[in-house]
Amino acid sequence: MIIIGEKINGTIPPVKKAIEERNADFIRDRAIKQAEAGANFIDVCASTAPDVEVETLKWLIDIVQDAVDTPICIDSPNPIFLKEVIPFIKKQGLINSVNLEMVAGTDQDKCDVIFPLMEGNDWEVVALTCDNSGIPCDVQPRVDIALKIIEKAAKYGITPDRIHIDPLVMALSTDNQSLINFIDSINKIKAVYPTVKITSGLSNISFGMPARKLINQNFMTLAIYAGMDSAIMDPLNKEIMSSIFASEALLGRDRHTRKFSAAVRKGIIG
Amino acid sequence: MIIIGEKINGTIPPVKKAIEERNADFIRDRAIKQAEAGANFIDVCASTAPDVEVETLKWLIDIVQDAVDTPICIDSPNPIFLKEVIPFIKKQGLINSVNLEMVAGTDQDKCDVIFPLMEGNDWEVVALTCDNSGIPCDVQPRVDIALKIIEKAAKYGITPDRIHIDPLVMALSTDNQSLINFIDSINKIKAVYPTVKITSGLSNISFGMPARKLINQNFMTLAIYAGMDSAIMDPLNKEIMSSIFASEALLGRDRHTRKFSAAVRKGIIG
Repeated sequence: MIIIGEKINGTIPPVKKAIEERNADFIRDRAIKQAEAGANFIDVCASTAPDVEVETLKWLIDIVQDAVDTPICIDSPNPIFLKEVIPFIKKQGLINSVNLEMVAGTDQDKCDVIFPLMEGNDWEVVALTCDNSGIPCDVQPRVDIALKIIEKAAKYGITPDRIHIDPLVMALSTDNQSLINFIDSINKIKAVYPTVKITSGLSNISFGMPARKLINQNFMTLAIYAGMDSAIMDPLNKEIMSSIFASEALLGRDRHTRKFSAAVRKGIIG
Repeated sequence: MIIIGEKINGTIPPVKKAIEERNADFIRDRAIKQAEAGANFIDVCASTAPDVEVETLKWLIDIVQDAVDTPICIDSPNPIFLKEVIPFIKKQGLINSVNLEMVAGTDQDKCDVIFPLMEGNDWEVVALTCDNSGIPCDVQPRVDIALKIIEKAAKYGITPDRIHIDPLVMALSTDNQSLINFIDSINKIKAVYPTVKITSGLSNISFGMPARKLINQNFMTLAIYAGMDSAIMDPLNKEIMSSIFASEALLGRDRHTRKFSAAVRKGIIG
Protein backbone atom coordinates (compact mmCIF):
# COMPACT_ATOMS: atom_id res chain seq x y z
CA MET A 1 0.00 0.00 0.00
CA ILE A 2 1.16 3.45 -0.93
CA ILE A 3 0.17 5.78 1.90
CA ILE A 4 -0.64 9.41 1.09
CA GLY A 5 -0.61 11.23 4.44
CA GLU A 6 -3.60 13.57 4.67
CA LYS A 7 -2.81 15.53 7.81
CA ILE A 8 -1.54 18.80 6.29
CA ASN A 9 -4.82 20.12 4.93
CA GLY A 10 -6.34 23.53 5.60
CA THR A 11 -9.80 21.97 5.98
CA ILE A 12 -8.61 20.48 9.31
CA PRO A 13 -9.27 23.20 11.97
CA PRO A 14 -5.90 23.10 13.81
CA VAL A 15 -4.07 23.10 10.45
CA LYS A 16 -6.17 26.06 9.30
CA LYS A 17 -5.18 27.87 12.48
CA ALA A 18 -1.48 27.01 12.02
CA ILE A 19 -1.65 28.34 8.46
CA GLU A 20 -3.27 31.58 9.60
CA GLU A 21 -0.68 32.05 12.33
CA ARG A 22 2.15 30.88 10.07
CA ASN A 23 3.05 28.32 12.75
CA ALA A 24 5.82 26.45 10.94
CA ASP A 25 6.59 24.17 13.91
CA PHE A 26 3.09 22.73 13.83
CA ILE A 27 3.28 21.93 10.11
CA ARG A 28 6.83 20.55 10.42
CA ASP A 29 5.78 18.25 13.26
CA ARG A 30 2.89 16.84 11.19
CA ALA A 31 5.23 16.22 8.25
CA ILE A 32 7.81 14.42 10.39
CA LYS A 33 5.27 12.30 12.29
CA GLN A 34 3.58 11.16 9.08
CA ALA A 35 6.92 10.34 7.46
CA GLU A 36 8.01 8.36 10.52
CA ALA A 37 4.71 6.42 10.52
CA GLY A 38 5.40 5.30 6.96
CA ALA A 39 3.72 7.82 4.66
CA ASN A 40 4.98 7.48 1.07
CA PHE A 41 3.73 10.96 0.14
CA ILE A 42 2.81 13.96 2.33
CA ASP A 43 -0.32 15.65 1.00
CA VAL A 44 -0.12 19.46 1.14
CA CYS A 45 -3.41 21.28 0.72
CA ALA A 46 -3.90 24.96 1.65
CA SER A 47 -7.66 25.24 1.36
CA THR A 48 -7.44 29.02 1.77
CA ALA A 49 -9.05 31.82 -0.21
CA PRO A 50 -7.87 31.69 -3.86
CA ASP A 51 -5.97 34.98 -3.65
CA VAL A 52 -3.57 33.59 -1.03
CA GLU A 53 -3.53 29.91 -2.06
CA VAL A 54 -0.32 29.94 -4.10
CA GLU A 55 1.59 31.86 -1.46
CA THR A 56 0.27 29.55 1.28
CA LEU A 57 1.15 26.44 -0.71
CA LYS A 58 4.71 27.72 -1.24
CA TRP A 59 5.07 28.34 2.50
CA LEU A 60 3.79 24.82 3.28
CA ILE A 61 5.96 23.20 0.60
CA ASP A 62 9.12 24.81 1.96
CA ILE A 63 8.44 23.62 5.49
CA VAL A 64 7.63 20.06 4.43
CA GLN A 65 10.52 19.59 2.02
CA ASP A 66 12.98 21.02 4.54
CA ALA A 67 11.66 18.68 7.25
CA VAL A 68 11.40 15.34 5.45
CA ASP A 69 12.65 13.44 2.41
CA THR A 70 9.20 12.01 1.75
CA PRO A 71 7.87 13.43 -1.54
CA ILE A 72 4.97 15.87 -1.51
CA CYS A 73 1.48 15.19 -2.85
CA ILE A 74 0.55 18.70 -3.96
CA ASP A 75 -3.16 19.19 -3.56
CA SER A 76 -5.39 21.91 -5.00
CA PRO A 77 -8.70 21.95 -6.86
CA ASN A 78 -7.20 24.61 -9.13
CA PRO A 79 -4.80 23.27 -11.78
CA ILE A 80 -3.51 26.76 -12.53
CA PHE A 81 -2.30 27.06 -8.92
CA LEU A 82 -0.77 23.56 -9.12
CA LYS A 83 1.11 24.66 -12.24
CA GLU A 84 2.44 27.71 -10.40
CA VAL A 85 3.72 25.90 -7.32
CA ILE A 86 5.08 22.67 -8.83
CA PRO A 87 8.38 24.36 -9.89
CA PHE A 88 9.06 25.06 -6.19
CA ILE A 89 8.90 21.38 -5.25
CA LYS A 90 12.39 19.87 -5.21
CA LYS A 91 11.52 16.16 -5.26
CA GLN A 92 9.10 14.80 -7.86
CA GLY A 93 5.96 13.62 -6.10
CA LEU A 94 2.25 13.30 -6.74
CA ILE A 95 -0.19 15.84 -8.19
CA ASN A 96 -3.67 15.82 -6.59
CA SER A 97 -5.70 15.94 -8.80
CA VAL A 98 -6.95 15.98 -12.36
CA ASN A 99 -10.27 14.97 -13.94
CA LEU A 100 -12.08 15.80 -17.17
CA GLU A 101 -13.67 19.04 -15.93
CA MET A 102 -13.01 22.08 -18.07
CA VAL A 103 -10.89 24.79 -16.46
CA ALA A 104 -12.92 28.01 -16.12
CA GLY A 105 -12.15 30.61 -18.76
CA THR A 106 -10.18 28.16 -20.96
CA ASP A 107 -10.91 25.50 -23.57
CA GLN A 108 -8.78 22.99 -21.66
CA ASP A 109 -9.70 20.36 -19.09
CA LYS A 110 -7.60 19.80 -15.96
CA CYS A 111 -5.56 17.07 -17.67
CA ASP A 112 -4.65 19.43 -20.51
CA VAL A 113 -3.18 21.84 -17.95
CA ILE A 114 -1.36 19.29 -15.77
CA PHE A 115 -0.13 16.57 -18.13
CA PRO A 116 2.38 18.78 -20.02
CA LEU A 117 4.14 19.33 -16.65
CA MET A 118 4.59 15.57 -16.34
CA GLU A 119 6.37 14.99 -19.66
CA GLY A 120 9.82 13.49 -19.37
CA ASN A 121 9.88 13.25 -15.58
CA ASP A 122 8.60 10.97 -12.80
CA TRP A 123 5.72 12.99 -11.35
CA GLU A 124 2.66 10.92 -10.60
CA VAL A 125 -0.96 12.09 -10.60
CA VAL A 126 -4.28 11.35 -8.92
CA ALA A 127 -7.13 11.28 -11.45
CA LEU A 128 -10.79 11.42 -10.39
CA THR A 129 -13.47 9.80 -12.52
CA CYS A 130 -15.63 12.86 -13.06
CA ASP A 131 -16.14 15.46 -15.74
CA ASN A 132 -18.25 18.57 -16.35
CA SER A 133 -21.42 16.54 -15.80
CA GLY A 134 -20.23 15.59 -12.30
CA ILE A 135 -19.66 12.08 -10.95
CA PRO A 136 -21.51 9.45 -13.00
CA CYS A 137 -23.77 7.19 -10.92
CA ASP A 138 -22.90 3.99 -12.78
CA VAL A 139 -19.69 2.03 -12.96
CA GLN A 140 -19.23 1.96 -16.73
CA PRO A 141 -19.23 5.76 -17.36
CA ARG A 142 -16.71 6.13 -14.54
CA VAL A 143 -14.52 3.47 -16.09
CA ASP A 144 -14.88 5.26 -19.44
CA ILE A 145 -13.63 8.51 -17.87
CA ALA A 146 -10.68 6.66 -16.30
CA LEU A 147 -9.75 5.12 -19.64
CA LYS A 148 -10.03 8.50 -21.41
CA ILE A 149 -7.68 10.06 -18.85
CA ILE A 150 -5.16 7.23 -19.18
CA GLU A 151 -5.26 7.55 -22.98
CA LYS A 152 -4.85 11.31 -22.79
CA ALA A 153 -1.84 10.81 -20.47
CA ALA A 154 -0.24 8.42 -22.96
CA LYS A 155 0.02 11.30 -25.46
CA TYR A 156 2.41 12.99 -23.03
CA GLY A 157 4.40 9.83 -22.48
CA ILE A 158 2.84 9.33 -19.03
CA THR A 159 2.64 5.59 -18.38
CA PRO A 160 -0.39 4.09 -16.51
CA ASP A 161 1.73 3.19 -13.46
CA ARG A 162 2.15 6.94 -12.79
CA ILE A 163 -1.62 7.45 -12.60
CA HIS A 164 -3.64 6.82 -9.42
CA ILE A 165 -7.27 6.54 -10.52
CA ASP A 166 -9.77 7.45 -7.79
CA PRO A 167 -13.11 5.87 -8.74
CA LEU A 168 -14.86 8.05 -6.12
CA VAL A 169 -16.48 5.67 -3.67
CA MET A 170 -20.03 6.64 -2.69
CA ALA A 171 -21.46 6.50 0.84
CA LEU A 172 -22.63 3.00 1.73
CA SER A 173 -25.59 4.48 3.61
CA THR A 174 -27.04 5.79 0.36
CA ASP A 175 -25.77 3.06 -1.98
CA ASN A 176 -25.63 -0.51 -0.67
CA GLN A 177 -23.54 -1.50 -3.69
CA SER A 178 -20.90 1.16 -3.12
CA LEU A 179 -17.97 -1.18 -2.35
CA ILE A 180 -19.16 -3.73 -4.90
CA ASN A 181 -19.17 -0.98 -7.53
CA PHE A 182 -15.71 0.16 -6.43
CA ILE A 183 -14.39 -3.39 -6.83
CA ASP A 184 -16.13 -3.66 -10.18
CA SER A 185 -14.46 -0.39 -11.29
CA ILE A 186 -11.04 -1.66 -10.18
CA ASN A 187 -11.48 -4.89 -12.13
CA LYS A 188 -12.73 -3.15 -15.28
CA ILE A 189 -9.95 -0.53 -15.29
CA LYS A 190 -7.15 -3.01 -14.48
CA ALA A 191 -8.45 -5.41 -17.14
CA VAL A 192 -7.45 -2.78 -19.73
CA TYR A 193 -4.45 -1.22 -17.93
CA PRO A 194 -3.08 -3.73 -15.40
CA THR A 195 -0.31 -1.42 -14.19
CA VAL A 196 -2.51 1.61 -13.43
CA LYS A 197 -2.82 2.41 -9.73
CA ILE A 198 -6.16 2.65 -7.93
CA THR A 199 -6.53 5.04 -5.02
CA SER A 200 -9.26 6.21 -2.68
CA GLY A 201 -10.00 8.36 0.30
CA LEU A 202 -11.28 6.31 3.23
CA SER A 203 -13.97 8.32 4.90
CA ASN A 204 -16.60 8.77 2.20
CA ILE A 205 -17.71 5.13 2.34
CA SER A 206 -18.91 5.50 5.96
CA PHE A 207 -20.60 8.90 5.62
CA GLY A 208 -23.88 9.05 7.56
CA MET A 209 -23.22 5.84 9.51
CA PRO A 210 -22.53 5.22 13.20
CA ALA A 211 -19.18 3.68 14.27
CA ARG A 212 -17.65 4.96 11.02
CA LYS A 213 -14.15 3.80 11.90
CA LEU A 214 -15.30 0.15 11.73
CA ILE A 215 -16.56 0.66 8.20
CA ASN A 216 -13.38 2.54 7.21
CA GLN A 217 -11.11 -0.20 8.62
CA ASN A 218 -12.97 -3.01 6.90
CA PHE A 219 -13.21 -1.01 3.69
CA MET A 220 -9.42 -0.76 3.73
CA THR A 221 -9.04 -4.53 4.23
CA LEU A 222 -11.47 -5.44 1.45
CA ALA A 223 -10.14 -2.75 -0.92
CA ILE A 224 -6.57 -4.02 -0.51
CA TYR A 225 -7.75 -7.51 -1.39
CA ALA A 226 -9.64 -6.10 -4.39
CA GLY A 227 -6.52 -4.36 -5.74
CA MET A 228 -6.43 -0.83 -4.33
CA ASP A 229 -2.82 0.41 -4.53
CA SER A 230 -2.79 3.67 -2.58
CA ALA A 231 -4.96 5.60 -0.15
CA ILE A 232 -5.25 9.15 1.09
CA MET A 233 -5.35 8.57 4.83
CA ASP A 234 -3.96 9.31 8.28
CA PRO A 235 -0.79 7.20 8.76
CA LEU A 236 -0.98 7.93 12.51
CA ASN A 237 -4.34 6.13 12.73
CA LYS A 238 -3.29 2.81 14.26
CA GLU A 239 -6.54 1.09 13.39
CA ILE A 240 -6.33 1.82 9.68
CA MET A 241 -2.61 1.01 9.68
CA SER A 242 -3.48 -2.29 11.40
CA SER A 243 -5.87 -3.13 8.57
CA ILE A 244 -3.06 -2.50 6.07
CA PHE A 245 -0.35 -4.52 7.82
CA ALA A 246 -2.67 -7.39 8.76
CA SER A 247 -4.21 -7.61 5.28
CA GLU A 248 -0.86 -7.56 3.55
CA ALA A 249 0.40 -10.31 5.86
CA LEU A 250 -2.75 -12.38 5.31
CA LEU A 251 -2.51 -11.93 1.55
CA GLY A 252 0.99 -13.42 1.55
CA ARG A 253 2.75 -10.12 0.77
CA ASP A 254 4.79 -10.01 3.99
CA ARG A 255 7.43 -12.72 4.08
CA HIS A 256 7.47 -14.49 7.46
CA THR A 257 5.05 -11.71 8.59
CA ARG A 258 8.13 -9.65 9.42
CA LYS A 259 6.71 -6.25 8.44
CA PHE A 260 3.61 -6.91 10.54
CA SER A 261 5.67 -7.92 13.56
CA ALA A 262 8.00 -4.92 13.16
CA ALA A 263 5.00 -2.56 12.97
CA VAL A 264 3.65 -4.02 16.24
CA ARG A 265 7.09 -3.62 17.84
CA LYS A 266 7.40 0.01 16.70
CA GLY A 267 3.89 0.83 17.96
CA ILE A 268 2.65 1.76 14.47
CA ILE A 269 -0.17 -0.79 14.87
CA GLY A 270 -1.69 -2.81 17.70
CA MET B 1 -22.50 -15.36 8.78
CA ILE B 2 -23.53 -18.32 10.86
CA ILE B 3 -21.98 -17.87 14.30
CA ILE B 4 -21.09 -20.98 16.30
CA GLY B 5 -20.54 -19.77 19.87
CA GLU B 6 -17.39 -21.36 21.31
CA LYS B 7 -17.61 -20.34 24.95
CA ILE B 8 -18.88 -23.59 26.52
CA ASN B 9 -15.78 -25.71 26.11
CA GLY B 10 -13.97 -27.63 28.82
CA THR B 11 -10.60 -26.56 27.45
CA ILE B 12 -11.37 -23.02 28.73
CA PRO B 13 -10.14 -22.96 32.39
CA PRO B 14 -13.21 -21.31 34.03
CA VAL B 15 -15.52 -23.65 32.07
CA LYS B 16 -13.44 -26.64 33.17
CA LYS B 17 -13.85 -25.48 36.77
CA ALA B 18 -17.61 -24.96 36.36
CA ILE B 19 -17.91 -28.49 34.94
CA GLU B 20 -15.93 -29.97 37.83
CA GLU B 21 -18.06 -28.10 40.36
CA ARG B 22 -21.27 -28.75 38.42
CA ASN B 23 -21.88 -24.98 38.45
CA ALA B 24 -25.01 -24.85 36.27
CA ASP B 25 -25.47 -21.08 36.67
CA PHE B 26 -22.09 -20.42 35.08
CA ILE B 27 -22.90 -22.57 32.05
CA ARG B 28 -26.44 -21.16 31.74
CA ASP B 29 -25.10 -17.60 31.79
CA ARG B 30 -22.64 -18.38 28.96
CA ALA B 31 -25.44 -19.94 26.91
CA ILE B 32 -27.77 -16.96 27.38
CA LYS B 33 -25.10 -14.32 26.73
CA GLN B 34 -23.98 -16.03 23.50
CA ALA B 35 -27.57 -16.42 22.31
CA GLU B 36 -28.29 -12.75 23.03
CA ALA B 37 -25.16 -11.67 21.15
CA GLY B 38 -26.44 -13.47 18.05
CA ALA B 39 -24.96 -17.00 18.14
CA ASN B 40 -26.75 -19.30 15.70
CA PHE B 41 -25.46 -22.42 17.44
CA ILE B 42 -24.06 -22.91 20.96
CA ASP B 43 -21.07 -25.24 20.87
CA VAL B 44 -21.02 -27.70 23.79
CA CYS B 45 -17.72 -29.48 24.38
CA ALA B 46 -16.90 -31.32 27.62
CA SER B 47 -13.21 -32.00 27.09
CA THR B 48 -13.14 -34.24 30.15
CA ALA B 49 -11.66 -37.71 30.65
CA PRO B 50 -13.37 -40.19 28.30
CA ASP B 51 -15.02 -42.14 31.14
CA VAL B 52 -17.08 -39.12 32.20
CA GLU B 53 -17.51 -37.38 28.84
CA VAL B 54 -20.98 -38.69 27.96
CA GLU B 55 -22.37 -37.93 31.41
CA THR B 56 -20.79 -34.43 31.33
CA LEU B 57 -22.14 -33.71 27.85
CA LYS B 58 -25.66 -34.71 28.95
CA TRP B 59 -25.40 -32.38 31.95
CA LEU B 60 -24.25 -29.50 29.70
CA ILE B 61 -26.88 -30.23 27.05
CA ASP B 62 -29.71 -30.09 29.58
CA ILE B 63 -28.58 -26.74 30.96
CA VAL B 64 -28.15 -25.18 27.52
CA GLN B 65 -31.38 -26.42 26.01
CA ASP B 66 -33.35 -25.35 29.08
CA ALA B 67 -31.77 -21.89 28.98
CA VAL B 68 -31.98 -20.95 25.29
CA ASP B 69 -33.78 -21.82 22.06
CA THR B 70 -30.56 -21.58 20.08
CA PRO B 71 -29.65 -25.03 18.73
CA ILE B 72 -26.64 -26.87 20.11
CA CYS B 73 -23.44 -27.63 18.24
CA ILE B 74 -22.49 -30.90 19.93
CA ASP B 75 -18.73 -31.19 20.03
CA SER B 76 -16.58 -34.23 20.74
CA PRO B 77 -13.60 -35.84 19.04
CA ASN B 78 -15.26 -39.20 19.72
CA PRO B 79 -18.10 -40.09 17.32
CA ILE B 80 -19.28 -42.92 19.57
CA PHE B 81 -19.91 -40.40 22.36
CA LEU B 82 -21.67 -38.06 19.89
CA LYS B 83 -23.91 -40.96 18.87
CA GLU B 84 -24.77 -41.59 22.53
CA VAL B 85 -25.69 -38.02 23.44
CA ILE B 86 -27.46 -36.84 20.27
CA PRO B 87 -30.77 -38.51 21.27
CA PHE B 88 -30.85 -36.25 24.34
CA ILE B 89 -30.77 -33.08 22.26
CA LYS B 90 -34.31 -31.79 21.65
CA LYS B 91 -33.65 -29.38 18.79
CA GLN B 92 -31.73 -30.52 15.72
CA GLY B 93 -28.45 -28.65 15.56
CA LEU B 94 -24.89 -29.15 14.38
CA ILE B 95 -22.54 -32.10 14.93
CA ASN B 96 -18.88 -31.14 15.46
CA SER B 97 -17.20 -32.99 13.79
CA VAL B 98 -16.48 -35.73 11.27
CA ASN B 99 -13.50 -36.42 9.03
CA LEU B 100 -12.14 -39.47 7.21
CA GLU B 101 -10.19 -40.87 10.19
CA MET B 102 -10.97 -44.46 11.09
CA VAL B 103 -12.67 -44.97 14.45
CA ALA B 104 -10.42 -47.06 16.75
CA GLY B 105 -11.46 -50.70 17.02
CA THR B 106 -13.85 -50.49 14.04
CA ASP B 107 -13.67 -50.65 10.25
CA GLN B 108 -15.62 -47.41 9.98
CA ASP B 109 -14.51 -43.81 9.63
CA LYS B 110 -16.15 -40.98 11.60
CA CYS B 111 -18.56 -40.24 8.75
CA ASP B 112 -19.74 -43.88 8.74
CA VAL B 113 -20.69 -43.53 12.41
CA ILE B 114 -22.33 -40.09 12.24
CA PHE B 115 -24.04 -39.90 8.86
CA PRO B 116 -26.67 -42.60 9.60
CA LEU B 117 -27.87 -40.37 12.48
CA MET B 118 -28.49 -37.56 9.99
CA GLU B 119 -30.76 -39.48 7.64
CA GLY B 120 -34.23 -38.01 7.20
CA ASN B 121 -33.73 -35.07 9.56
CA ASP B 122 -32.20 -31.58 9.54
CA TRP B 123 -29.03 -32.10 11.58
CA GLU B 124 -26.01 -30.35 10.12
CA VAL B 125 -22.36 -31.39 10.46
CA VAL B 126 -18.88 -29.89 10.56
CA ALA B 127 -16.44 -31.88 8.41
CA LEU B 128 -12.68 -31.46 8.69
CA THR B 129 -10.43 -32.10 5.70
CA CYS B 130 -8.22 -34.70 7.28
CA ASP B 131 -7.93 -38.47 7.33
CA ASN B 132 -5.78 -41.18 8.89
CA SER B 133 -2.69 -39.62 7.31
CA GLY B 134 -3.39 -36.34 9.09
CA ILE B 135 -3.95 -32.92 7.52
CA PRO B 136 -2.58 -32.76 3.97
CA CYS B 137 -0.20 -29.89 3.34
CA ASP B 138 -1.49 -29.02 -0.10
CA VAL B 139 -4.82 -27.59 -1.18
CA GLN B 140 -5.83 -30.28 -3.67
CA PRO B 141 -5.71 -33.30 -1.31
CA ARG B 142 -7.76 -31.32 1.21
CA VAL B 143 -10.30 -30.50 -1.46
CA ASP B 144 -10.33 -34.20 -2.43
CA ILE B 145 -11.15 -35.16 1.19
CA ALA B 146 -13.94 -32.56 1.29
CA LEU B 147 -15.43 -33.90 -1.93
CA LYS B 148 -15.22 -37.51 -0.66
CA ILE B 149 -17.06 -36.53 2.53
CA ILE B 150 -19.78 -34.68 0.59
CA GLU B 151 -20.22 -37.68 -1.71
CA LYS B 152 -20.37 -40.07 1.24
CA ALA B 153 -23.04 -37.83 2.84
CA ALA B 154 -25.13 -37.93 -0.33
CA LYS B 155 -25.57 -41.69 0.17
CA TYR B 156 -27.47 -40.88 3.36
CA GLY B 157 -29.56 -38.20 1.69
CA ILE B 158 -27.53 -35.45 3.38
CA THR B 159 -27.46 -32.45 1.05
CA PRO B 160 -24.30 -30.27 0.75
CA ASP B 161 -25.98 -27.27 2.41
CA ARG B 162 -26.06 -29.31 5.67
CA ILE B 163 -22.28 -29.76 5.63
CA HIS B 164 -19.84 -27.13 6.99
CA ILE B 165 -16.45 -28.00 5.52
CA ASP B 166 -13.53 -26.78 7.64
CA PRO B 167 -10.46 -26.64 5.36
CA LEU B 168 -8.21 -26.30 8.45
CA VAL B 169 -6.39 -23.01 8.10
CA MET B 170 -2.68 -23.18 8.95
CA ALA B 171 -0.76 -20.58 10.97
CA LEU B 172 0.31 -17.64 8.82
CA SER B 173 3.60 -17.46 10.71
CA THR B 174 4.65 -20.84 9.32
CA ASP B 175 2.87 -20.62 5.94
CA ASN B 176 2.71 -17.24 4.22
CA GLN B 177 0.14 -18.65 1.79
CA SER B 178 -2.23 -19.85 4.50
CA LEU B 179 -5.14 -17.51 3.73
CA ILE B 180 -4.51 -17.74 0.00
CA ASN B 181 -4.71 -21.54 0.28
CA PHE B 182 -7.89 -21.26 2.34
CA ILE B 183 -9.48 -19.07 -0.34
CA ASP B 184 -8.27 -21.48 -3.01
CA SER B 185 -9.88 -24.36 -1.10
CA ILE B 186 -13.19 -22.47 -0.81
CA ASN B 187 -13.23 -21.75 -4.53
CA LYS B 188 -12.35 -25.31 -5.53
CA ILE B 189 -14.94 -26.92 -3.22
CA LYS B 190 -17.72 -24.45 -4.10
CA ALA B 191 -16.99 -24.87 -7.80
CA VAL B 192 -18.19 -28.48 -7.43
CA TYR B 193 -20.80 -28.00 -4.68
CA PRO B 194 -21.92 -24.35 -4.65
CA THR B 195 -24.34 -24.83 -1.74
CA VAL B 196 -21.89 -26.48 0.67
CA LYS B 197 -20.97 -24.32 3.66
CA ILE B 198 -17.40 -23.41 4.56
CA THR B 199 -16.46 -22.90 8.19
CA SER B 200 -13.33 -22.17 10.20
CA GLY B 201 -12.02 -21.48 13.64
CA LEU B 202 -10.46 -18.03 13.89
CA SER B 203 -7.44 -18.33 16.08
CA ASN B 204 -5.21 -20.80 14.24
CA ILE B 205 -4.31 -18.31 11.51
CA SER B 206 -2.57 -15.98 14.00
CA PHE B 207 -0.73 -18.64 16.03
CA GLY B 208 2.79 -17.53 16.92
CA MET B 209 2.23 -13.87 15.96
CA PRO B 210 2.06 -10.70 18.06
CA ALA B 211 -1.19 -8.67 18.12
CA ARG B 212 -3.11 -11.81 17.15
CA LYS B 213 -6.50 -10.16 17.37
CA LEU B 214 -5.62 -7.88 14.44
CA ILE B 215 -4.87 -10.91 12.28
CA ASN B 216 -8.04 -12.68 13.46
CA GLN B 217 -10.25 -9.66 12.72
CA ASN B 218 -8.83 -9.14 9.25
CA PHE B 219 -8.94 -12.88 8.56
CA MET B 220 -12.67 -12.76 9.31
CA THR B 221 -13.20 -9.84 6.94
CA LEU B 222 -11.26 -11.41 4.08
CA ALA B 223 -12.76 -14.88 4.67
CA ILE B 224 -16.31 -13.49 4.53
CA TYR B 225 -15.48 -11.86 1.21
CA ALA B 226 -13.98 -15.12 -0.02
CA GLY B 227 -17.14 -17.07 0.82
CA MET B 228 -16.80 -18.43 4.36
CA ASP B 229 -20.32 -19.15 5.66
CA SER B 230 -19.86 -19.94 9.34
CA ALA B 231 -17.24 -19.61 12.06
CA ILE B 232 -16.55 -21.12 15.44
CA MET B 233 -15.94 -18.00 17.49
CA ASP B 234 -16.77 -15.86 20.51
CA PRO B 235 -19.93 -13.87 19.74
CA LEU B 236 -19.15 -11.63 22.73
CA ASN B 237 -15.92 -10.48 21.09
CA LYS B 238 -16.93 -7.05 19.82
CA GLU B 239 -13.95 -6.73 17.51
CA ILE B 240 -14.67 -9.93 15.61
CA MET B 241 -18.40 -9.15 15.55
CA SER B 242 -17.49 -5.71 14.16
CA SER B 243 -15.61 -7.37 11.31
CA ILE B 244 -18.70 -9.45 10.52
CA PHE B 245 -21.26 -6.63 10.60
CA ALA B 246 -19.00 -4.14 8.78
CA SER B 247 -18.02 -6.65 6.09
CA GLU B 248 -21.57 -7.74 5.46
CA ALA B 249 -22.66 -4.10 5.16
CA LEU B 250 -19.76 -3.32 2.82
CA LEU B 251 -20.52 -6.37 0.68
CA GLY B 252 -24.08 -5.13 0.11
CA ARG B 253 -25.71 -7.82 2.27
CA ASP B 254 -27.24 -5.40 4.78
CA ARG B 255 -30.01 -3.33 3.23
CA HIS B 256 -29.68 0.35 4.19
CA THR B 257 -26.95 -0.85 6.62
CA ARG B 258 -29.73 -1.43 9.16
CA LYS B 259 -28.24 -4.53 10.79
CA PHE B 260 -24.92 -2.75 11.24
CA SER B 261 -26.58 0.30 12.80
CA ALA B 262 -28.73 -1.88 15.08
CA ALA B 263 -25.65 -3.82 16.23
CA VAL B 264 -23.94 -0.53 17.14
CA ARG B 265 -27.06 0.62 19.00
CA LYS B 266 -27.30 -2.65 20.95
CA GLY B 267 -23.61 -2.51 21.87
CA ILE B 268 -22.83 -5.78 20.05
CA ILE B 269 -20.15 -3.93 18.04
CA GLY B 270 -18.34 -0.59 18.19
